[in-house]
Amino acid sequence: MAVYTEVSDAELEAFLAEYDIGSPESFKGIAEGVENSNFLLTTDKGPYFVTLYEKRVDPKDLPFFLGLMDHLAARGINCPQPIHGRDGKALRTLAGRPAAITTFLQGLWPRRMTLGHCGQVGEALAALHLAGRDFELKRPNALSVAGWRPLYEGSRHHIDAPLAAELEAEIDFFEANWPSGLPSGVIHADLFNDNVLFLHDKLSGLIDFYFACNDAFAYDVSICLNAWCFEPDKSFNATKGRALLQGYEAVRPLGDDERKVLPLLARGSALRFLLTRLYDWVHTPPDAMVKRKDPQEYLAKLRFHRGISSIADYGL
Amino acid sequence: MAVYTEVSDAELEAFLAEYDIGSPESFKGIAEGVENSNFLLTTDKGPYFVTLYEKRVDPKDLPFFLGLMDHLAARGINCPQPIHGRDGKALRTLAGRPAAITTFLQGLWPRRMTLGHCGQVGEALAALHLAGRDFELKRPNALSVAGWRPLYEGSRHHIDAPLAAELEAEIDFFEANWPSGLPSGVIHADLFNDNVLFLHDKLSGLIDFYFACNDAFAYDVSICLNAWCFEPDKSFNATKGRALLQGYEAVRPLGDDERKVLPLLARGSALRFLLTRLYDWVHTPPDAMVKRKDPQEYLAKLRFHRGISSIADYGL
Repeated sequence: MAVYTEVSDAELEAFLAEYDIGSPESFKGIAEGVENSNFLLTTDKGPYFVTLYEKRVDPKDLPFFLGLMDHLAARGINCPQPIHGRDGKALRTLAGRPAAITTFLQGLWPRRMTLGHCGQVGEALAALHLAGRDFELKRPNALSVAGWRPLYEGSRHHIDAPLAAELEAEIDFFEANWPSGLPSGVIHADLFNDNVLFLHDKLSGLIDFYFACNDAFAYDVSICLNAWCFEPDKSFNATKGRALLQGYEAVRPLGDDERKVLPLLARGSALRFLLTRLYDWVHTPPDAMVKRKDPQEYLAKLRFHRGISSIADYGL
Repeated sequence: MAVYTEVSDAELEAFLAEYDIGSPESFKGIAEGVENSNFLLTTDKGPYFVTLYEKRVDPKDLPFFLGLMDHLAARGINCPQPIHGRDGKALRTLAGRPAAITTFLQGLWPRRMTLGHCGQVGEALAALHLAGRDFELKRPNALSVAGWRPLYEGSRHHIDAPLAAELEAEIDFFEANWPSGLPSGVIHADLFNDNVLFLHDKLSGLIDFYFACNDAFAYDVSICLNAWCFEPDKSFNATKGRALLQGYEAVRPLGDDERKVLPLLARGSALRFLLTRLYDWVHTPPDAMVKRKDPQEYLAKLRFHRGISSIADYGL
């Protein structure tokens, strides 16, 4: 939940004067997204989404994120589309922060994930990978292997010795064995259920591209396996796994090289989310209003993938 | 900022099935209101506001609040209007909380208050007082004089001795000198700038009736003087005071009894907000995500009113 920055009347008015989207009829802070301040703006021309980029987003990445949404929307991906001002620019300043307006997507994110969602998520992810292939800007994945040890170091004094040993062994292993040379391009890198909208059980949009980067497509698939195919009791649902993978392959078939390393990638992406959640967990006071995400969930997923030797175990 | 309760897909679906307002197209938590969880729901029939009442609202007060909004809306006051379900009920349960749907009002609350706002707020307040006169339910003001000492007792160990002595003297004074017998009825009791919406500089709605109660009309006027007529440097702006009071009197003239005690009431309402802010200040960890409101602001206002002997000093 997040609105970190208050926007005054005069600031909003001056900001909107740069656009041709009508005059404001309401402006409400949205309690979603832990990285930025988000507002739902409605004007006489319809609803829009206003984002103020807070300090966790590096301003130099913004042309990548906004350019990517422009690029994907132009290729038929249902994602927020940046609104360009009269000067052609999509990125400007509001209340002292970098800020942008995008279209507002219809749909609700599913609180409970069903089999029906998984197939559509797989299809949408593959479509995103294909649509992003000719996007020219690049952004390395700051939360890939090289970023894991620093995250771990920032949390290790807050965790018990057996867990520390387990995590350190995982990082050692991945630093030595992370696959390279896989088919790569723009990946979403955070396609969790709160970033996928559905309208009447049909996928209506993908949102929150602020972790998007260049990395292996199969790594993105592995993130979705982790995000969509486990049950609340932390057991893997192979029927959901099959639906997600079949959905993906209906649009972009996985190569043999990708299939072979999928368990390794899934174990790695489980570690990545375990490490960021652990870091946030130990650095967020328990009485703060931010909802902390339980790192234990991803420890269970990590251990599950460590026992997997073949993509067949994911249902395919 | 507030969304304290997550609503699952199945819960939302079952809840909306009780209403005839179409099917949901989006459902976003709103970062406003510190008392309840609020969501903006859009359906194919338009935007609605969904509120889940959290623990700071006593469920037995809800028929008063919802009934009052029904009553006021029927008399032409632009306020959220509760949506009644197919069974006629406006109040039901969502995610284990009492919950209601209301209409969604257009407009933005002014971050910077201008002279133009003040006159309209006065008029709207008087219209609310008149429209509420034949509302049958009653709710005593829990935050009037009798509630001040307990609030003070809950904060006194966190404040310095001179301030404690000053507040205690104020409470002693008001317990002995609080006026009675003034014209009374339903008051809003919290008509701050974030509870008044404007569209193109015209007042478009009053919101948040969850402090509404039965008390003296002039006390409500005094709350607005405190909320709307001071500048950021804590100085009173008598031009704004005059605009607010003239706006009020254009709809409902104040009686001599009310005019005489207005400085006393304004001093009392400053103390009321000082005490609740102080209580929240000392009981909210400074690193929590809730924005704490500075109690000092109301100490300055309290002292200002203590030096006022006549309504003329407010600009009238």
